[in-house]
Amino acid sequence: MTTGGQGWTSGLFRDQELAGQFSDAAMFAGFARFEQALINALAEAGLVEAEDAGRLVSQIAGFEPDHQAIAEAVVRDGLPVPDYVRQLRAHVSGPGSSMLHHGATSQDLIDTATVEALARTSDILAARLDALLALIADRQSSDGGHRLQAITRMQAALPFEASARLSAWMHPLEDLRERLTELTQRSRVLQFGGAVGDLQALGDKAPIIAQSLAKQLDLSWPGHSWHSARGPVMAHANWVSELSGALGKIGQDLALMALRGGEDIALSGGGSSSAMPHKQNPVTAELLVTLARYNATQISGMHQAQIHEMERSGAAWMLEWMILPNMCETAGAGLTAACGLFQSIERIGEPS
Amino acid sequence: MTTGGQGWTSGLFRDQELAGQFSDAAMFAGFARFEQALINALAEAGLVEAEDAGRLVSQIAGFEPDHQAIAEAVVRDGLPVPDYVRQLRAHVSGPGSSMLHHGATSQDLIDTATVEALARTSDILAARLDALLALIADRQSSDGGHRLQAITRMQAALPFEASARLSAWMHPLEDLRERLTELTQRSRVLQFGGAVGDLQALGDKAPIIAQSLAKQLDLSWPGHSWHSARGPVMAHANWVSELSGALGKIGQDLALMALRGGEDIALSGGGSSSAMPHKQNPVTAELLVTLARYNATQISGMHQAQIHEMERSGAAWMLEWMILPNMCETAGAGLTAACGLFQSIERIGEPS
Amino acid sequence: MTTGGQGWTSGLFRDQELAGQFSDAAMFAGFARFEQALINALAEAGLVEAEDAGRLVSQIAGFEPDHQAIAEAVVRDGLPVPDYVRQLRAHVSGPGSSMLHHGATSQDLIDTATVEALARTSDILAARLDALLALIADRQSSDGGHRLQAITRMQAALPFEASARLSAWMHPLEDLRERLTELTQRSRVLQFGGAVGDLQALGDKAPIIAQSLAKQLDLSWPGHSWHSARGPVMAHANWVSELSGALGKIGQDLALMALRGGEDIALSGGGSSSAMPHKQNPVTAELLVTLARYNATQISGMHQAQIHEMERSGAAWMLEWMILPNMCETAGAGLTAACGLFQSIERIGEPS
Amino acid sequence: MTTGGQGWTSGLFRDQELAGQFSDAAMFAGFARFEQALINALAEAGLVEAEDAGRLVSQIAGFEPDHQAIAEAVVRDGLPVPDYVRQLRAHVSGPGSSMLHHGATSQDLIDTATVEALARTSDILAARLDALLALIADRQSSDGGHRLQAITRMQAALPFEASARLSAWMHPLEDLRERLTELTQRSRVLQFGGAVGDLQALGDKAPIIAQSLAKQLDLSWPGHSWHSARGPVMAHANWVSELSGALGKIGQDLALMALRGGEDIALSGGGSSSAMPHKQNPVTAELLVTLARYNATQISGMHQAQIHEMERSGAAWMLEWMILPNMCETAGAGLTAACGLFQSIERIGEPS
Repeated sequence: MTTGGQGWTSGLFRDQELAGQFSDAAMFAGFARFEQALINALAEAGLVEAEDAGRLVSQIAGFEPDHQAIAEAVVRDGLPVPDYVRQLRAHVSGPGSSMLHHGATSQDLIDTATVEALARTSDILAARLDALLALIADRQSSDGGHRLQAITRMQAALPFEASARLSAWMHPLEDLRERLTELTQRSRVLQFGGAVGDLQALGDKAPIIAQSLAKQLDLSWPGHSWHSARGPVMAHANWVSELSGALGKIGQDLALMALRGGEDIALSGGGSSSAMPHKQNPVTAELLVTLARYNATQISGMHQAQIHEMERSGAAWMLEWMILPNMCETAGAGLTAACGLFQSIERIGEPS
Repeated sequence: MTTGGQGWTSGLFRDQELAGQFSDAAMFAGFARFEQALINALAEAGLVEAEDAGRLVSQIAGFEPDHQAIAEAVVRDGLPVPDYVRQLRAHVSGPGSSMLHHGATSQDLIDTATVEALARTSDILAARLDALLALIADRQSSDGGHRLQAITRMQAALPFEASARLSAWMHPLEDLRERLTELTQRSRVLQFGGAVGDLQALGDKAPIIAQSLAKQLDLSWPGHSWHSARGPVMAHANWVSELSGALGKIGQDLALMALRGGEDIALSGGGSSSAMPHKQNPVTAELLVTLARYNATQISGMHQAQIHEMERSGAAWMLEWMILPNMCETAGAGLTAACGLFQSIERIGEPS
Repeated sequence: MTTGGQGWTSGLFRDQELAGQFSDAAMFAGFARFEQALINALAEAGLVEAEDAGRLVSQIAGFEPDHQAIAEAVVRDGLPVPDYVRQLRAHVSGPGSSMLHHGATSQDLIDTATVEALARTSDILAARLDALLALIADRQSSDGGHRLQAITRMQAALPFEASARLSAWMHPLEDLRERLTELTQRSRVLQFGGAVGDLQALGDKAPIIAQSLAKQLDLSWPGHSWHSARGPVMAHANWVSELSGALGKIGQDLALMALRGGEDIALSGGGSSSAMPHKQNPVTAELLVTLARYNATQISGMHQAQIHEMERSGAAWMLEWMILPNMCETAGAGLTAACGLFQSIERIGEPS
Repeated sequence: MTTGGQGWTSGLFRDQELAGQFSDAAMFAGFARFEQALINALAEAGLVEAEDAGRLVSQIAGFEPDHQAIAEAVVRDGLPVPDYVRQLRAHVSGPGSSMLHHGATSQDLIDTATVEALARTSDILAARLDALLALIADRQSSDGGHRLQAITRMQAALPFEASARLSAWMHPLEDLRERLTELTQRSRVLQFGGAVGDLQALGDKAPIIAQSLAKQLDLSWPGHSWHSARGPVMAHANWVSELSGALGKIGQDLALMALRGGEDIALSGGGSSSAMPHKQNPVTAELLVTLARYNATQISGMHQAQIHEMERSGAAWMLEWMILPNMCETAGAGLTAACGLFQSIERIGEPS
């Protein structure tokens, strides 16, 4: 019952690999890539000399931000970029240094680094989803022809084949897998707007610089910033909650099957009870339901966070930071749990 | 503060045109189309004689369900189809009558009628969204070059052109408009699974019948039912809440601009105050925020409703019924309000 | 799947008796009581002649507001009071008429009428809760000694007495019943603040007038307005959602017991299936889960609505109007459904 | 944008002091107190010899659980108690050892330790709330007579005294402070039910043992377990979200006042911008809004978690673990932020 990724609940709710995509180290690396690409782009636009740009890019590559100092500055600034840029300015030197961060604003760095983190997150989730689909397909191969009792509205309905239930689990996961590829492509969008979103400090060089920046970072450039229009992050939030929901439905079914007994399922493992040593609780099946209901709760906050005030809302934006990485971790923890759960299934239904 | 679509709050929160898409009349008409198409499909599959099918389709066309009897049966059955079908069976006659509803289940009728209602809803929302985009474009043409104060994090940032803020409002609406076409195509999916989702009663005729049904209803057939996988309804729910969010952001901005005063905006109309006759409240701008926060609340319930138990969950499914039509109405009311609000704008920013 | 209290879903989700407490008629009657009490209070404070007050009170008693005109004005004003007061001013005549509504504002009328509606709602819910508790107690008397299988974490745990499960259902309902009395007393609070919440138009007469108003309306007066501090409405919202949750837990259990079969429960009635005539679905048990998850969704919106801007936020306040009456209806529908469900229980557990 | 209590967002969203109340160390200490009290209670009931009890209590006092082993076991068991008890059993020795944990179950330990953590949380929040109220009262003393513009529905309404707005902030905080004392008393409730909630393993000794346990732990004993009735945790969840809401309202106001400028407020400090060095963003005011909307999101999950299945639901219970400690931290972070914010206020309104 601790928060913060440590403690006994970590093994249930956290996902270190996904948390790592949003860590300070990962985000600050994204900031560095942005600042490097920006210097190169400014050079392409003729605002920085090419050789200065090369030197600055090298200097940025060697920059090690002081995490602790940033963490302290965040309490005052509400975000890490001002202090990050202050440190970076102190680190670089030579001609062109004053052009560091030129035309950009904090939100450009944070949102772009977030888009990159979400893309990495999607890659991780995609691989796990493939693994889970393979496990379900294996079960389909072995037990698809088994006899199972179909249940509708909490009543025994008709007997059917186990393959029907297994397919009902697979189809939404397959759809989500297919949509993920598309979603990730669509949402790999550069954030770049400068102080108030219109890139005014860059004048008519803005389009060239933006395009160069996007190209270097392997992102698309929609022709405008999206500071107060949160489409790319919303797309990921909706998707991860739908994934958790699809896993939660499987967990709910497996918990009900465990309740109905050996006719429905044989599971190995299962949780111990401190009071009843004879029990084997379908803990992981329950966990999938928990994680689904958690993300179904969080999604509301993401939709609330769409209501930015004017050109930038700290209130709405910080709400995303509180919620979205946790949603990704929750989805990731769910996939890991679901894979483990399928590995512990010994049989579904009964041979007919 | 009444519920139920009547009373003084209706003018703020309800949308009669959209409510109409989910009315008994509209849904029961969907049921009739389904039963007609099913009879034809059964005929194609050789399970009903062609002439009998023709006669039954005509008989169904003349069927007027007793709404009151259905409403009463719903309290017992939890859904309207059993009594609807009972009445319909009593209405039709002649050879082939016993094949009415053959192979289908309540959920096939309700979900398919819902998909159709959502498609009609999308058409209505698309038209209103086009109208709103045209109004914003008009304002863009007239006032785009005006000078406005950009505001970030609740502080005056820099002056910029009104066009920048207007564009920031338009871009997400344009994206939503584009996505709507795609979403509607994707989610026009026949629901057809029979008692437990596997169309077992139809044996190897199932694919022919499902394809015929889909073709007649102008829907796609994914090759399987989606009784417990709610992708198509989730896609609509997410979309309408994102639309409400984009409108809420505009409302929030316009309310803040009204607070800042004539430098930012000149509005005609505005709400009266019972205590301060001098005030003109930006009521409609506030309403857009309310509607956005309402849908951002509801979306959580839709994500919770993904967790179906086994082959059909009454609990989860009914939750959709409580929430989704209201979300559509809320989005529709928002578009109407936003159009009215843009018509009441006399000027944004100041000529430079 | 209609919205608005009519249509086939009404029998599941709506509650006419509770809806009636928030109807135009009920709310406008509250406005009239407020205006009458205010005139009397102004007379006590010496701002209106006693005989004029008497006449005005009589005139108000005979006032029939034009609901349709108010509904139309609401679209412009965002609330019904300005037009209601305009109509009322046109209705009254004679000396003192100009003092009608003196010192008050729209929010005073709406919030006070809402507090009264919530008090009536609580009385209705209290009576139904008593009835439900009596039904569970009856079942306790008849079947408490029966043998039942305790289930923990979706696994058979140990056998126990049915009385243990019945008690686990009753205790939270008894707690809620006890808290309701206290909650209703605490939240019977006059709203009175005038234009900006400080009763400035009444000068040092404000306390006398407020106290008189409260006394006449049988409400308490906390010494200040609570325009932007929503404690009384929040208390009701939390309570009704907790009630729905307690009923949802019972519904969940009964649905699971129905799944486990006759060893656990014998139910009469139950819903028909259009595809499987042999089934008797525990529709009402599922409905209790739906209603609980609905209110658990809505409660988030009420908590969001706490964030009023400055002295009055239309955005936050309207969100309450969209949500709170529906939450009350949902709780009411749940109690009615739960009573019906207990009446349909023939046996819980098995005689030992 | 990291999760887990470390990283740059910690300074905004986390609260180490409150997190500490739910840490492994704190929770396991609660388990130890429970097991000690239980041994004493069993001795009072004559089930353990007094001298054995004394020795076991001493042995438990010296027990250092292996946190890592517990964390690993949690993945299998879904909770830490089975492995904790296994380790503890291995640690103690001598007559009576077999009575360790006798009659208790995991939930008794976890829920009781949680109740204790919530009570400590309340004490911390109470002290901070007192400090905040003192700061607001100071501002009331210095600036209460200043002139300020009242704002209703995002429009300048009338001038009023700053004291009116300050009072509108204080009243709900004072109410919450008063309710906290009562809430904490009410919710200091022992959880004790044994395997399936009815204490059946203790027979007619159960009441004596439960009362002794409660007395030793300074908790009340309601006469029954509340395994599946979550009243005590719900009371805290509702309260902390109401607190966050009251603080969010203040933050929203202060952000709007900062937007309106020096006529409304003079703030020292404020956040830097990476693009606009002239700005001083009201970061902490925005943060209060973020934290309020976060808790208003989370509260929905707590209400969903009321729907336990049968005698114990892992799915619902784990959802509490994911949400409630974070809600407490969020409320705590809000109080700390609000105190800092009030210390940075130099003036509210203008001397008249």
